Amino acid sequence: MPDYPKTDLNTVRRLAKRGVYDEATVHAIVDEALICHAGFVHDGRPFVMPTIHVRTGRTVYLHGAPANRMLSVIASGVPVCLTMTLIDGIVFARSVFHHSMNYRSAMLFGTGRAVTDPEEKWKAFEALTEHIAKGRWNDARVPNEVETKTTAVVAVEIESASAKVRTGGANDEEEDYALPVWAGVLPLSLTPGTPEPDPRMENGTSVPEYVRRYTRTK
Amino acid sequence: MPDYPKTDLNTVRRLAKRGVYDEATVHAIVDEALICHAGFVHDGRPFVMPTIHVRTGRTVYLHGAPANRMLSVIASGVPVCLTMTLIDGIVFARSVFHHSMNYRSAMLFGTGRAVTDPEEKWKAFEALTEHIAKGRWNDARVPNEVETKTTAVVAVEIESASAKVRTGGANDEEEDYALPVWAGVLPLSLTPGTPEPDPRMENGTSVPEYVRRYTRTK
Repeated sequence: MPDYPKTDLNTVRRLAKRGVYDEATVHAIVDEALICHAGFVHDGRPFVMPTIHVRTGRTVYLHGAPANRMLSVIASGVPVCLTMTLIDGIVFARSVFHHSMNYRSAMLFGTGRAVTDPEEKWKAFEALTEHIAKGRWNDARVPNEVETKTTAVVAVEIESASAKVRTGGANDEEEDYALPVWAGVLPLSLTPGTPEPDPRMENGTSVPEYVRRYTRTK
Repeated sequence: MPDYPKTDLNTVRRLAKRGVYDEATVHAIVDEALICHAGFVHDGRPFVMPTIHVRTGRTVYLHGAPANRMLSVIASGVPVCLTMTLIDGIVFARSVFHHSMNYRSAMLFGTGRAVTDPEEKWKAFEALTEHIAKGRWNDARVPNEVETKTTAVVAVEIESASAKVRTGGANDEEEDYALPVWAGVLPLSLTPGTPEPDPRMENGTSVPEYVRRYTRTK
């Protein structure tokens, strides 16, 4: 897969060795993340909103109520920054200074537009649902006309993107290795618990596979 | 605890019943979150960066390398938006339309300043370390002079804040309850795995309690 162009906007400055620009790495992070943090400027001030997203090619779809401020601002075509972050662990070093996090983050820069074409909007509904749980679209009742009308969808075309990835253990100063301080990595991950069926499940429907064995990784 | 003032900036517009402004709710989310997403405007464009934070009263501290662009922009006193999001679960409804997420998010608005007072900087180091793992500051080697000099700390004074919280199960349309579709909540949480000791642990130091029983909740 090709790389996103490396411009002044997306070039990772700090710890540049952690910066990657290839589409495969960036897209894998975007797709694994359940939500993104959408940044936009309104009245000269920054806003950062958590929201569900889905990626199709180099387009990211967001959705919400038509009166949603974030969506109307983004649909107006202003620059947008979408950031996805996956926390993989805490790195405990012998020195406070070398503590770190293992993580994977993607930062996408682009501009938005309202999705008005009915077919594109429907495809976005399907993709958003499948992003949450693959297989759900075919099981649940699809949106009716009123629901479709009262859901706004906005597309952000990714013009530039970068990813930052940190893996591995602690990197301490040579003279600190002898210190009696525990060092290592505590892995962290977004983990599913036991599904809680709705009390009004009147039909004894069993828990679908995509809920029982829920995972964000492919 | 008092409320943050409800202004045009922080008023939750969509699903206003989910919006809360009391300090206790906002601060509990800020403190449980391991990282925040910091939004700022640079050259007229929005940037959203994931970063570790810690709160002390109504001040949030961020840190990094002195050349870090995010920190220098924020230290210059521009408006900042810090957003913390905790994902609690996926709400599976019978209709695609009523799918939702259980989550708690906090959005803080404020302005930044560079922390130059040595005592405030040291306290911020301690607070940031303790935010990651309570008890770690006393165990690890504290920063030396060079490390202190090569770590920039920025304070963001919270001027306005809001939280959004969604809990509970699916709220379906009355006529959908009879559908043979599984509905319910799949809980999700950031969960620690098994600690991975550094291969160069030369002294057999045992895994500290705050790593073995790691939790983000109080």
